[in-house]
Amino acid sequence: MNEKLEDLEDLIREERLTELRRALDDFNVGDVVDFLERLGVKDRAVTFRLLPKAVAVEAFEMLDQSLQHEIIEGLKDVDVALFFESLDPDDRVRLMDEMPASIARRMMRHLDPRERSLTNIVLGYPSGTIGRQMSPEFVAIPEHWTVAQAMEKVSRAGEDAETLYTLPVVDPARLLRGVVSLRDLVSAGGEELVVDLMAEADSVDADHDAEDAARLCADRKHLAVPVTDSEHRVVGIFTVDDALDILERAESEDAARHGGAEPLHRPYLSTPVLTIMRSRVVWLLVLALGAALTVQVLDVFEGTIESMVVLSLFVPLLIGTGGNSGNQAATTVTRALALGDVGTRDVLKVLWREVRVGITLGATLGVLGFLVAGFIYGWDIGTVIGLTLLSICTLAASVGGLMPLLGKKLGADPAVFANPFISTFVDATGLIVYFMIARTVLGL
Amino acid sequence: MNEKLEDLEDLIREERLTELRRALDDFNVGDVVDFLERLGVKDRAVTFRLLPKAVAVEAFEMLDQSLQHEIIEGLKDVDVALFFESLDPDDRVRLMDEMPASIARRMMRHLDPRERSLTNIVLGYPSGTIGRQMSPEFVAIPEHWTVAQAMEKVSRAGEDAETLYTLPVVDPARLLRGVVSLRDLVSAGGEELVVDLMAEADSVDADHDAEDAARLCADRKHLAVPVTDSEHRVVGIFTVDDALDILERAESEDAARHGGAEPLHRPYLSTPVLTIMRSRVVWLLVLALGAALTVQVLDVFEGTIESMVVLSLFVPLLIGTGGNSGNQAATTVTRALALGDVGTRDVLKVLWREVRVGITLGATLGVLGFLVAGFIYGWDIGTVIGLTLLSICTLAASVGGLMPLLGKKLGADPAVFANPFISTFVDATGLIVYFMIARTVLGL
Repeated sequence: MNEKLEDLEDLIREERLTELRRALDDFNVGDVVDFLERLGVKDRAVTFRLLPKAVAVEAFEMLDQSLQHEIIEGLKDVDVALFFESLDPDDRVRLMDEMPASIARRMMRHLDPRERSLTNIVLGYPSGTIGRQMSPEFVAIPEHWTVAQAMEKVSRAGEDAETLYTLPVVDPARLLRGVVSLRDLVSAGGEELVVDLMAEADSVDADHDAEDAARLCADRKHLAVPVTDSEHRVVGIFTVDDALDILERAESEDAARHGGAEPLHRPYLSTPVLTIMRSRVVWLLVLALGAALTVQVLDVFEGTIESMVVLSLFVPLLIGTGGNSGNQAATTVTRALALGDVGTRDVLKVLWREVRVGITLGATLGVLGFLVAGFIYGWDIGTVIGLTLLSICTLAASVGGLMPLLGKKLGADPAVFANPFISTFVDATGLIVYFMIARTVLGL
Repeated sequence: MNEKLEDLEDLIREERLTELRRALDDFNVGDVVDFLERLGVKDRAVTFRLLPKAVAVEAFEMLDQSLQHEIIEGLKDVDVALFFESLDPDDRVRLMDEMPASIARRMMRHLDPRERSLTNIVLGYPSGTIGRQMSPEFVAIPEHWTVAQAMEKVSRAGEDAETLYTLPVVDPARLLRGVVSLRDLVSAGGEELVVDLMAEADSVDADHDAEDAARLCADRKHLAVPVTDSEHRVVGIFTVDDALDILERAESEDAARHGGAEPLHRPYLSTPVLTIMRSRVVWLLVLALGAALTVQVLDVFEGTIESMVVLSLFVPLLIGTGGNSGNQAATTVTRALALGDVGTRDVLKVLWREVRVGITLGATLGVLGFLVAGFIYGWDIGTVIGLTLLSICTLAASVGGLMPLLGKKLGADPAVFANPFISTFVDATGLIVYFMIARTVLGL
């Protein structure tokens, strides 16, 4: 697979387009998408125009919005209309969010009335809500129907419905009563009543946060979740494949911010170097600014260092260890938050756990540090190092564990508050602790 | 929801079990599972015994294997048999992997012959492969059948099949020819031929790595993927909900290791403090060992520091910045690897990108460092700081970008090779660069 992609890239580089077109025929749509995601803007546009219309439409639907957006820009209005029409209402809205309002409006005009009104339903919900991500094309089954009636409606729904596998069951007022799976319908006798096959439904409110909804869908292993309005009327359906997209995006954002950079929102190899640079520079500057604090601290203790240069040898080791144990705690809690294993109400539970973990870790490293440093640099230095490791680990673990919860509480991305801000904080405070202990123990 | 959970926890703490039992009745299974995942071993056992049999069985299936394992241990043999029987063969195997072989064997004996042989099929594949995670209970449709015949078989399959929504289409030799969706079957006329509705199938070999297979299933938005043997005969099916479990587990491992700790493989609040401590201590020690390198380096340059203590003030800032930019690069590439956006063959592409990013970032910070440090501590110091920032950022970004690829190449978890090992590496080398530059510029 990977090899085949490499070959295609050669064909592009050498502009052997007829061969490229022929080579693309052996690929299934998924492979084509993988390939397009590896190319720069220009090569992608070239390759895309070589695709047979049918494949192009299918591939377009599977592409990242950011890439769809770039491809659209390179197309003639008539083609734009075609690809735009081919999308489901929810995907269409997500693409529109990527594009200048003017183009978006022009494309809306190309749509037939039905598609336009469906799109407008989704556009009606603020971005970030599940209403903005749901599909308004669902098949609802009246609760008093028989299985035969339901199957009849399902088989007629055909292409238009987002899914046929999870069907909202509604009362005459379109209020959600439950869900019935196509699986149960096909296994049941035609005369049985839908209400008897119906299962209790996990549903989400259309104004609900999209990521939470996606997490619910994934955790509970639902293929689809009905979306309801404030009166619990069914307004749309939300499928697991969209949940996967949302969660993957969220994971990428967490990972990026946790690594001290802004998410790229697009495949790495198709991202211009300058964009990558921009995604990192602000963070790096802010963190360097924070690190300037450590210069201040050391400046204050310059005298202490002068009178005992050996103390400066341990600075990287001590702040490094502090950073690591803070990072460990922050990562664990951030992940637990993302999975919904802990919430902001658990702050005391978490603190108490991390304090105990921090002390045990600190004690372990402290004893080691005392022995090693003491053996090489003398036992007074050993005492300083040992005590400092104990305090820094405890401090770092507690702060590291609390930071993500604090972030969440403040409505920020927990991963932002986690490492690397912790390291910066722990570095500065750790140094103060270090030199205070040193002064006391060594009587400087 | 969260509030309700809090209340339940009070009921347990105050051992008001009858009230707890009544309160649990208002919860759907999903909520019950969320609740069980927040409890310690003892409370979980207590609560589980209070559940109505039906709910208990369903909840048991949804629980993490590690927690299933603990619950099983607390049950009488007869109940064990019940819960074990209730699991699908693939889930059963995963649970057995958690348990001592002796118990696992005893439980196997309780199974009826059909279930046992199905379980043995899955047990036949090495752990870590998709064969070990697939379900052997699939419904295959002969290609020459009509839609009516297919629907007949599907409706009879009922409970036993893992999924009815994606059906492998096979030839008389059971070779995989494609897949047909139940959606297409119900939308088609009874006389139509399955072969005409059949779509090309993404399939995975049973010996294939489970995580890759899960990634394929999720990326391509398949509800299920047929699993085939070396002759391309269908041996099982692999559904998106299992893919979600595998990917979530993988994400958690990456996150944990990326944060410098071993994954907990269980919900945070239900993990004993000592287990958390153990998951971190080894890493912390190894990293501290690495950090000891920096003590060595500084020891070598102690003379330089003595003759110019001001140099020591910038050590945390410089290595911190190096660690951050290395971390940024590593995180980006690790994520791209996990998503399949880059492969080990892209090593040169990645290196060339990160070198350019590193230089631009280094130049930006270098100029700033030069101006600020120069203004406060004199222009010669400024020059040293500026040049060091430039070199460290470039070095860190390149190394950070390569590390994950190297890790992957060596068959290790890329996240392990990423931060925090980079920081340790960059710290030591960065210090050497720093003092070399200082000596040259300041002519020490």
